[in-house]
Amino acid sequence: MFLTRTEYDRGVNTFSPEGRLFQVEYAIEAIKLGSTAIGVKTKEGVVLAVEKRITSPLLEPSSVEKIMEIDDHIGCAMSGLIADARTLVEHARVETQNHRFSYGEPMTVESTTQALCDLALRFGEGDEESMSRPFGVSLLIAGHDENGPSLYYTDPSGTFWQCNAKAIGSGSEGADSSLQEQFNKDITLQEAETIAVSILKQVMEEKVTPNNVDIAKVAPAYHLYTPQEVEAVISRL
Amino acid sequence: MFLTRTEYDRGVNTFSPEGRLFQVEYAIEAIKLGSTAIGVKTKEGVVLAVEKRITSPLLEPSSVEKIMEIDDHIGCAMSGLIADARTLVEHARVETQNHRFSYGEPMTVESTTQALCDLALRFGEGDEESMSRPFGVSLLIAGHDENGPSLYYTDPSGTFWQCNAKAIGSGSEGADSSLQEQFNKDITLQEAETIAVSILKQVMEEKVTPNNVDIAKVAPAYHLYTPQEVEAVISRL
Amino acid sequence: MFLTRTEYDRGVNTFSPEGRLFQVEYAIEAIKLGSTAIGVKTKEGVVLAVEKRITSPLLEPSSVEKIMEIDDHIGCAMSGLIADARTLVEHARVETQNHRFSYGEPMTVESTTQALCDLALRFGEGDEESMSRPFGVSLLIAGHDENGPSLYYTDPSGTFWQCNAKAIGSGSEGADSSLQEQFNKDITLQEAETIAVSILKQVMEEKVTPNNVDIAKVAPAYHLYTPQEVEAVISRL
Amino acid sequence: MFLTRTEYDRGVNTFSPEGRLFQVEYAIEAIKLGSTAIGVKTKEGVVLAVEKRITSPLLEPSSVEKIMEIDDHIGCAMSGLIADARTLVEHARVETQNHRFSYGEPMTVESTTQALCDLALRFGEGDEESMSRPFGVSLLIAGHDENGPSLYYTDPSGTFWQCNAKAIGSGSEGADSSLQEQFNKDITLQEAETIAVSILKQVMEEKVTPNNVDIAKVAPAYHLYTPQEVEAVISRL
Amino acid sequence: MFLTRTEYDRGVNTFSPEGRLFQVEYAIEAIKLGSTAIGVKTKEGVVLAVEKRITSPLLEPSSVEKIMEIDDHIGCAMSGLIADARTLVEHARVETQNHRFSYGEPMTVESTTQALCDLALRFGEGDEESMSRPFGVSLLIAGHDENGPSLYYTDPSGTFWQCNAKAIGSGSEGADSSLQEQFNKDITLQEAETIAVSILKQVMEEKVTPNNVDIAKVAPAYHLYTPQEVEAVISRL
Amino acid sequence: MFLTRTEYDRGVNTFSPEGRLFQVEYAIEAIKLGSTAIGVKTKEGVVLAVEKRITSPLLEPSSVEKIMEIDDHIGCAMSGLIADARTLVEHARVETQNHRFSYGEPMTVESTTQALCDLALRFGEGDEESMSRPFGVSLLIAGHDENGPSLYYTDPSGTFWQCNAKAIGSGSEGADSSLQEQFNKDITLQEAETIAVSILKQVMEEKVTPNNVDIAKVAPAYHLYTPQEVEAVISRL
Amino acid sequence: MFLTRTEYDRGVNTFSPEGRLFQVEYAIEAIKLGSTAIGVKTKEGVVLAVEKRITSPLLEPSSVEKIMEIDDHIGCAMSGLIADARTLVEHARVETQNHRFSYGEPMTVESTTQALCDLALRFGEGDEESMSRPFGVSLLIAGHDENGPSLYYTDPSGTFWQCNAKAIGSGSEGADSSLQEQFNKDITLQEAETIAVSILKQVMEEKVTPNNVDIAKVAPAYHLYTPQEVEAVISRL
Repeated sequence: MFLTRTEYDRGVNTFSPEGRLFQVEYAIEAIKLGSTAIGVKTKEGVVLAVEKRITSPLLEPSSVEKIMEIDDHIGCAMSGLIADARTLVEHARVETQNHRFSYGEPMTVESTTQALCDLALRFGEGDEESMSRPFGVSLLIAGHDENGPSLYYTDPSGTFWQCNAKAIGSGSEGADSSLQEQFNKDITLQEAETIAVSILKQVMEEKVTPNNVDIAKVAPAYHLYTPQEVEAVISRL
Repeated sequence: MFLTRTEYDRGVNTFSPEGRLFQVEYAIEAIKLGSTAIGVKTKEGVVLAVEKRITSPLLEPSSVEKIMEIDDHIGCAMSGLIADARTLVEHARVETQNHRFSYGEPMTVESTTQALCDLALRFGEGDEESMSRPFGVSLLIAGHDENGPSLYYTDPSGTFWQCNAKAIGSGSEGADSSLQEQFNKDITLQEAETIAVSILKQVMEEKVTPNNVDIAKVAPAYHLYTPQEVEAVISRL
Repeated sequence: MFLTRTEYDRGVNTFSPEGRLFQVEYAIEAIKLGSTAIGVKTKEGVVLAVEKRITSPLLEPSSVEKIMEIDDHIGCAMSGLIADARTLVEHARVETQNHRFSYGEPMTVESTTQALCDLALRFGEGDEESMSRPFGVSLLIAGHDENGPSLYYTDPSGTFWQCNAKAIGSGSEGADSSLQEQFNKDITLQEAETIAVSILKQVMEEKVTPNNVDIAKVAPAYHLYTPQEVEAVISRL
Repeated sequence: MFLTRTEYDRGVNTFSPEGRLFQVEYAIEAIKLGSTAIGVKTKEGVVLAVEKRITSPLLEPSSVEKIMEIDDHIGCAMSGLIADARTLVEHARVETQNHRFSYGEPMTVESTTQALCDLALRFGEGDEESMSRPFGVSLLIAGHDENGPSLYYTDPSGTFWQCNAKAIGSGSEGADSSLQEQFNKDITLQEAETIAVSILKQVMEEKVTPNNVDIAKVAPAYHLYTPQEVEAVISRL
Repeated sequence: MFLTRTEYDRGVNTFSPEGRLFQVEYAIEAIKLGSTAIGVKTKEGVVLAVEKRITSPLLEPSSVEKIMEIDDHIGCAMSGLIADARTLVEHARVETQNHRFSYGEPMTVESTTQALCDLALRFGEGDEESMSRPFGVSLLIAGHDENGPSLYYTDPSGTFWQCNAKAIGSGSEGADSSLQEQFNKDITLQEAETIAVSILKQVMEEKVTPNNVDIAKVAPAYHLYTPQEVEAVISRL
Repeated sequence: MFLTRTEYDRGVNTFSPEGRLFQVEYAIEAIKLGSTAIGVKTKEGVVLAVEKRITSPLLEPSSVEKIMEIDDHIGCAMSGLIADARTLVEHARVETQNHRFSYGEPMTVESTTQALCDLALRFGEGDEESMSRPFGVSLLIAGHDENGPSLYYTDPSGTFWQCNAKAIGSGSEGADSSLQEQFNKDITLQEAETIAVSILKQVMEEKVTPNNVDIAKVAPAYHLYTPQEVEAVISRL
Repeated sequence: MFLTRTEYDRGVNTFSPEGRLFQVEYAIEAIKLGSTAIGVKTKEGVVLAVEKRITSPLLEPSSVEKIMEIDDHIGCAMSGLIADARTLVEHARVETQNHRFSYGEPMTVESTTQALCDLALRFGEGDEESMSRPFGVSLLIAGHDENGPSLYYTDPSGTFWQCNAKAIGSGSEGADSSLQEQFNKDITLQEAETIAVSILKQVMEEKVTPNNVDIAKVAPAYHLYTPQEVEAVISRL
């Protein structure tokens, strides 16, 4: 009586009889193939940590960017298609700069997240900036504004949630469980660093080194850790 | 002699031989997968109550917004795709602000609802603001204007009805029956709160707490209940 | 040698080998699913009467509008997709207001009907105002102008006819037969009210009440009956 | 080796291997379903006569217009989809009015016919005024200009021919044979009236009355016969 | 390994694996269904002669135009879809008039032919003037300019050749053979008339009369023969 | 696991799993059906020679143009669809004229070739000047500029190479082998003429005459040989 | 339950159920068919070396350009579809020139690479400059800016990485292994030349000569080696 599932997923933005949007679900699969990223919020600020897959020793590790600055007070970690993430981040950078220029004050973290998701939601609409398919990327957006530190999680459907801690990418399932066990609202930023990297270590196949892990914090300004700072965190494990 | 049902639902906006629009019907299915929302109108004002599905203890409950303010005198509860609902609500906010600016007075609740439905109806038309598919969301729009309190219910086809009480989402069938039994036109706002939350409790699988239920009223201004106010309603059950 | 009927109906606006336009025929099916509406013309004016399906006791009957005013001197009853009808009526309202503004006099009923049908005919043409599918609605347009009272019937193909009396919707077949038996050109407006409502009563499954029937007249101005006026007509049966 | 006929007719405007355009041929089928119309040219002027199918006694016969005025000196009879014909006639009316305004003289009958056919030819081209499918209508265009009376016949392909006499619609085959037998160039206008209506009578299933037949002449001005004038012609048979 | 021939011809303007454009080839088929036309070039000028199929005695033979004037010094005969030919001729008329206006001198025959073919080549390109399919018509373009008389032959692919003599349409194969036998460069215009009409006579099923044959010459001005002049040529056979 | 080859070639500009663009490959097939053309570069200048297929003795051989001038210092020979070649040549003529006008000096041969290939590459992109399919033609572009004589070869993919000698069209395989044997960098222009025509003679089915062969040189100006000059080359064989 | 892999790859820019973009993967196949290119970064500068496939001795080796200058301080080597590469390089040239003009300083190597990838990412989006399919080319971008020498590698998905050394094209797998063995950060530019060419030699089927290998360096300015300079490197092996 119904088309099989397979026949509905061709339409880029069409409901199946059960009310599902398959292209969005498949884009979410693209993220499950991605490297793992973890965000942890504390009262002092937010920590982001990501796995970097260095496929060849000839690759420059620092050029594999999985954590990017959006504005002084906002950074994000990503999992999925990196080229898609760059488009979203570039969009957010323009939005936050415009906000500073127009209003003389930084854009809130929620507004920035909303602006990113508005773009993500409109895939398939033929707009100038939107894509013809969903963006195949999830973001963990860490920021600090008048409401203090905050951590947002976005998915390819253009939906976002505020979290205390969250993992995305291929190791997200196990990492999320570990986060629920280890997280509480009163941990320090240093404890958050340790939790994030120790969980990454569990889900990564290789040994953790400053070459294959990046860490950043927003506390209250964005700061990407130097290899020495990463090494220091690793040595605390 | 006819194509099977399955072959008609590919055209985004095409009639089947029986005169049905399948994409609209499938979008309505998306809502049946959504969390339950309930609206109850009294002479004092309108109460909205929604179930919030908190999939992880690390999620910030307050960031799962299923009730949103449109204007001082209008709020809405939603069930279905939240990103779609945000687009509709954002559209309504612009419309009501423009109305205030142009006419120096609030937009009526019916006009606001009509504006939302005009946008919903035009899916697949290639307009700048419209979507290429139906909006996968139903809204309960609560408001208060010169005609007193009112409650509207919209569906993905762009049709709307005025109601005294209405439930939407996965638990709507049972909740609607309960509403018909318990509602009468002379209940107080406090009784409406109790009815709404007690019916939510019946259809929810988990225990009702201020974390997984949101309540708002428009009486005559929009007010989203604080966790304490929600707790107070729950404790009255 | 020919495609089966089923394979022609996918093209939104394409002829089948027999010279038929299937999407228009399927839209006409949408109307056969609609509630019944009846129009009767007398020398004093035109009467419109419609069945309202109130699916829940919690619905506000007055918000189920199946008869709408287009201008002071024109009203219409509808059957089919109500959201589609609203678009057509809104279009007609703009046209009649523009006419008054430009020419300082009311638009004739025929010109108004023609304007509605021009919009309906152009489905699938990618115009700004037109739809990508036929409008799934039939209208009975009642009016009064320099030529006296008139009643028009439109269908989804954009064709219209002038009638003395006409029924549309799910009960139209039986109702049309009854109209042919009971109508003559010399009936009074009051007799027309009685005929229209008594025929509605035959085709409706439920008891006729002011809640599930709306009546309007254009004689020579548009007037929607109050529940009391509807009750009075019902009590005359 | 070739696709079957059925697989070529999906493309709106595509040649089959034999060099045929099926959508045009199917539109011509739409005309074979239409009511019969007849045109006869005499030295005094041109007579048009059409069958009107009055499907219900409640229909206003005068609202079933199958003969329309284009300009003072041009009228046309039609068979096929009436809504399509209205679009073509409206287009011709604008063209002839523009011509009068620009050049201070009436447009010739051939130029008017050519303008109609230019629009008909461009179906499927995405122009503002053109349709996405062929116009499903044939016209008999009667006119009188500096070259005397003339009668043109157009079909959905945008081709036209000048004729002395011609029948279109469901009864056209038999009617054309009768015309060839009865027509000669020296008949009077009155004889042409008699021939046209007597042939219509042969192909119509019902009795001929002023209600189901319309007659018009262009001699040299367009005139639609009153019911009395039609009755007079019928009584001469 | 390859799609069968039939599956490539759906794309309006796509190569098959053998490097063929099927829609163009099918349009050429449309011409093989057309009536025969013949062009013969002499030192005195060019003669065009065409068969006219008069399907009914009630048709006005002079309204079946298969030879048309483009400018004072250029005319063309056609075979295939007449409505398509009209579009091309109308385009050429505008081009030659513009040329006269801009440069104060007639357009050369080759430039005119090139302009026609540019339009024909761009089918399927979505330009304003181009068609969505190939033009289903071949032309014989006769002209006279500073280079003396010339005769061009165009086909639906937008290609053209200069010829001394050429036949197109359903009888072209036999007619071309006869032309090769009878033509030499030193024949007079009168001999060309006789050759053209005598060959037409061979390929036509009916008797040749001034009613079913048209003749024109460009020597050096375009002239369409009167029935008397045609009769004179026929009587010389 | 993969679609068969046949199913990838429908998309006009889509990669197959092996990374191939089939429409381009099929367009290259169109060239293999074309007549042979040969280019030979010497220190004195470049020689182009082409086969002309004169399908009928009534065709004017000089109107079958397979070698065309682009600018005083550039000419080209072609094989494949002549109407496509005309579009490319016309584009190149405009580019070279614009260059002369803007910079007061001739465009280099490489820039001219690049401009042609830019147009060829963008097929299927919906630009104003580009085609919806690849151009089905190869060109041999001969020119002379500040770098001396040069010969370029272009194919439908928009790629070009500089060559000392090159053959294209149906006889290109054998002709290329012969060129490799007979060519050296020190031949004179006259020797190049002899080589080119003698190789053409090998691959043509018919006897070589001034009627079915065209020759041109760019040395340093473009010159198309007269029949007498062609005859002289042939007589040298 | 799922479509086979083959059925997802038709959509130009659509996710498969596993979250893959097949058209991008197929474009990457096009590169595996291309000739091998190698880049090596040293502290003194970057060396690029490419294989050139000279299919005929009549081809001018210098016209087979596989290494191109983008700006004084940036060059790139390519593998895949050369016509696609030209479009990207031309785009980068305009970007770097605009940057110099607007800011009075050279564009950084990373910004140039990003600009190239932005264009590559947006295939299928219908923008003016973007392609309807992925660009079928990989680039090795060598440059020198305020951060010293750098080497970037781009793929058809619009992603880029910074590398110390990298091989692309048909021989990339073996070449990458050899690079990992032989590369260290302290090699001199001359050693890099030797490594690059000796590895090319391993993967090429033919003997290495100045005719079938091109070498360039950016140290700190772009320089394409003359045949003598290439010969010198080869003789060192």
